[in-house]
Amino acid sequence: MSTSSNLINKAVEQLSKFPGIGQKSALRMALYLLKKSESETVELSQALINLRTEIKFCQQCFNLSDGELCNVCASPSKDATLVCVVKDFQDVIAIENTGQYNGHFHVLGGLISPVDGIGPSDIKIPELLNRVSKGEITEAILALSSTLEGDTTEFYIAKKLREMNIKVSTLSKGIAVGGELEYADEMTLARSIRNRTSLGS
Amino acid sequence: MSTSSNLINKAVEQLSKFPGIGQKSALRMALYLLKKSESETVELSQALINLRTEIKFCQQCFNLSDGELCNVCASPSKDATLVCVVKDFQDVIAIENTGQYNGHFHVLGGLISPVDGIGPSDIKIPELLNRVSKGEITEAILALSSTLEGDTTEFYIAKKLREMNIKVSTLSKGIAVGGELEYADEMTLARSIRNRTSLGS
Repeated sequence: MSTSSNLINKAVEQLSKFPGIGQKSALRMALYLLKKSESETVELSQALINLRTEIKFCQQCFNLSDGELCNVCASPSKDATLVCVVKDFQDVIAIENTGQYNGHFHVLGGLISPVDGIGPSDIKIPELLNRVSKGEITEAILALSSTLEGDTTEFYIAKKLREMNIKVSTLSKGIAVGGELEYADEMTLARSIRNRTSLGS
Repeated sequence: MSTSSNLINKAVEQLSKFPGIGQKSALRMALYLLKKSESETVELSQALINLRTEIKFCQQCFNLSDGELCNVCASPSKDATLVCVVKDFQDVIAIENTGQYNGHFHVLGGLISPVDGIGPSDIKIPELLNRVSKGEITEAILALSSTLEGDTTEFYIAKKLREMNIKVSTLSKGIAVGGELEYADEMTLARSIRNRTSLGS
């Protein structure tokens, strides 16, 4: 789709690079900007440039961060003896938003995947082991996807951490809360029967 | 949804102002920028700012334009005796993209709506009549929505233009091409029977 204005075409081309944004959505977004004041477009553009140029990785947990330490690592109210190991930044957001976890994180930035040539030292596993070796952390929760790569990474890290004598756990697997039993896949259902939760006798 | 980074929160807040973009999509867009080079973010921001600050209205047809005249009005290959009257810029794009129309446009910028206090002189109708009075235009196609406001505007303009002795037509109404008959509404179906197209006898 091209319009009679090169300025609009250029903006549409740029906006439609975003994931999930097609040409029609991009055009709607461009026309939206034209209905708003100039300062709003400047504000938007500035927020994007600031994000891209100023964001850092937390030096402790490799979470995306505004400063040297991310807000989680810098917060005195978080439990520094507990670390939750995740694949990436989105997982931190998801777990933080549950409101059920009050410890620190460690963002691996990927998962072990021999097929893709990604080994333990290509992701932040050495940094995790180094962090644990300092002695403050007493428990690690491995919150990785239940995929081949996730399981491989979990197996590797769990083995290393148990050698360092800290408590290691993983997320419970089972049917989704609110999920219909008939739609659960067989592997999940089998696992949720095997790991059934006692309701008392 | 808020993350541990204020830079991300700010970008998400700005991006989620776009129509059809929720918090989750905005976060996905922000994280997409972080995966790309800094120059790409600068290029995107620049395109948006250029669009907002440099876009003009065509002095002849009030289409959005990069210069004094839009690409349609400036093109010598377009038929300047034919004008298609539309509500806004999106309609110009839609009609241009059919590839079936090779004339000029006139963008009203709105429709007559007594309920909202919008009269004929609040939209670009005087400018249209002035344009036609110059004598070059011999035919006008009224391409307005088939709504109360669209019909009112069409009725008003058609009356004025007929007084100026030029050919006036409107878009044919009927069932959509490729549309199922059973899903067409009664008004549309009734109109498409009344205005049936002869296939010869």
